[in-house]
Amino acid sequence: MAGPNYLLCPSAVLSEFSAQVFMHFGVPEHDAWQASDVLSKADLRGIDSHGVARLRTYVDMFKIGRLNPNPKLKIIREKKSVATVDGDSGLGLVVGPKANEIAMEKASQYGSGWVSVCNTNHYGIASYYPLKALERDMIGWSMTNSSRIVVPLWGAERRLGTNPISIAFPGFKNPPIVIDLATSVVAFGKVEIAKREGKKIPEGWIIDQSGNHSTLPEDVYSGGLLPLGGTREMGGHKGYCLSSMVDILSCVLSGANWGPFAPPFALFEEAPKESVGKGIGHFFGAMEIEGFEDVDVFKKRIDHWIEVFRNTKPVPGRDAVLIPGDPEHEQEKVRNKEGIPVIEAVVEDLNQIARETGVPFRV
Amino acid sequence: MAGPNYLLCPSAVLSEFSAQVFMHFGVPEHDAWQASDVLSKADLRGIDSHGVARLRTYVDMFKIGRLNPNPKLKIIREKKSVATVDGDSGLGLVVGPKANEIAMEKASQYGSGWVSVCNTNHYGIASYYPLKALERDMIGWSMTNSSRIVVPLWGAERRLGTNPISIAFPGFKNPPIVIDLATSVVAFGKVEIAKREGKKIPEGWIIDQSGNHSTLPEDVYSGGLLPLGGTREMGGHKGYCLSSMVDILSCVLSGANWGPFAPPFALFEEAPKESVGKGIGHFFGAMEIEGFEDVDVFKKRIDHWIEVFRNTKPVPGRDAVLIPGDPEHEQEKVRNKEGIPVIEAVVEDLNQIARETGVPFRV
Repeated sequence: MAGPNYLLCPSAVLSEFSAQVFMHFGVPEHDAWQASDVLSKADLRGIDSHGVARLRTYVDMFKIGRLNPNPKLKIIREKKSVATVDGDSGLGLVVGPKANEIAMEKASQYGSGWVSVCNTNHYGIASYYPLKALERDMIGWSMTNSSRIVVPLWGAERRLGTNPISIAFPGFKNPPIVIDLATSVVAFGKVEIAKREGKKIPEGWIIDQSGNHSTLPEDVYSGGLLPLGGTREMGGHKGYCLSSMVDILSCVLSGANWGPFAPPFALFEEAPKESVGKGIGHFFGAMEIEGFEDVDVFKKRIDHWIEVFRNTKPVPGRDAVLIPGDPEHEQEKVRNKEGIPVIEAVVEDLNQIARETGVPFRV
Repeated sequence: MAGPNYLLCPSAVLSEFSAQVFMHFGVPEHDAWQASDVLSKADLRGIDSHGVARLRTYVDMFKIGRLNPNPKLKIIREKKSVATVDGDSGLGLVVGPKANEIAMEKASQYGSGWVSVCNTNHYGIASYYPLKALERDMIGWSMTNSSRIVVPLWGAERRLGTNPISIAFPGFKNPPIVIDLATSVVAFGKVEIAKREGKKIPEGWIIDQSGNHSTLPEDVYSGGLLPLGGTREMGGHKGYCLSSMVDILSCVLSGANWGPFAPPFALFEEAPKESVGKGIGHFFGAMEIEGFEDVDVFKKRIDHWIEVFRNTKPVPGRDAVLIPGDPEHEQEKVRNKEGIPVIEAVVEDLNQIARETGVPFRV
């Protein structure tokens, strides 16, 4: 949620700005708009950390030549419904949608399509891709690794990223069920917010440098985030397993840098000394609903599912049980109408990028 | 782990007994051995709750005619790599392996295969199926719903089963990485053990009848288990999302009874008043490694992954970071040699089944 100091920007203004900035760095027009669309979707859905707030980092990476502005994706290996794709060191916001497109094309032809991607970079919000699959009446899956911040259960060293999993299912009259979850117990951003506000964090979120649990947010910088579940008692081994699954499908399968070897997204993060593959990795899946069931029958069943779960008696102190994707859907409705609240620090970043690139930023 | 009062039985003896019992109820010989193999694998891998301890329930279900001893699986709908299968109300231990076989056959032909199954019953341990895929150099997935015991986050009513997810990856010299996790915070069995021992359970495992958190294990009977993560603060919405994903892929897609409508496995559980489909549901996937990468290259990368994760510096008080599947692999080595420790109560069950069916049980 935006605090008091923010600027309300129409989504179209931010989109246009991002696209022009990408073009400034040599990204072809169509790809630039594609990349900007991924960022916009994050801002519209209220996932502020993954929208224009990230533009600064993409710009920095272009400046030091870490990103190829015009990647030629290459299918390294394939067999009908499956393939491995090399992203040619492109912007993840361009490589991701193109690789997802390959998965969906395969699904049109073979009922399902599965693509593991190497040599890519940060791809935005994981749910962007399953949302695209919904437009074709497909169930879409998406996963990605990211730079090391999460410890395995019982480990005192960072070995994994927050490695998200996303999947979405279309309703008939209802908006889709959209699942998008990091496999860490919380997002790194939540720990940072607590630090900024001088608050303690719950036990089970992080460990300190020595591997002990800590409730001091600043300890995360020398320690790490715990996997979903947190402790053994609360199922921390399960979060570790899920994060490992994402790491293996996205990276070990494609030949990307897995686990602790993932190159960092932000420039201030220390890069691993060793490389075991190319870039980071993603994994996309698409399944044609039509191959399993009549599309409308399936969508109506999803409506029924939503209705039953929404009408679950809530626990004391809560109004209702939510459906996965509800909060983001609500945000999208509001923000489409009212605009995106961009916090002051990000507005400053955008103004700075405007000065550096000559692309005007005017709200 | 077995307590002091147990009988050490060679796995082959339990296998033979289960297979003969299934045959007694009209299951064809090949299917009976198949079903018995699923139970044996659970016992060998130390997942005692899912092995011969379950034979009593299968027998009871045969007795009241709830299970079809000789199901003819039918592909209701398919498109190349995907299909929906009707299990003809068969034993899940027979329907599961056959449907998994269909997924693997599709993977041989199309690179991957995905099968959603309705009209089936409890299918044993989820990891049995990915372990089968490993024999063909495939990455196998398996999921199933089960009877309602888990509440959605913020819900005070049971809506989901413990809905497990399993996936496995082969090593070259190392045993495979085997992921198999219930999407609830803990197994129901752990709450039952605490009750038997008169112990309190950690906050965040269960809610009571009113929807409040409880540390008294007996409250689970009128309340329910929490999803992985437990509370909102610790990511309970993520466990709810994962459980929902399993429910939808296994049931909404196939036309099985989803969510709270899943028919119970055990006879003493109350059956839902309404039915929205046929039986319970499973979801199987298989992907040929060869379609993504040279098989040996992939397996050697997995070995490297295992080595790096195993050598993570452990937290104080722990010896080492485990690899998913380690504990089960250790159990399998020991139990293959020494036999399966069957607790007294289960031995009594088996003796009783022997008396009822005339199938001899001799260790």
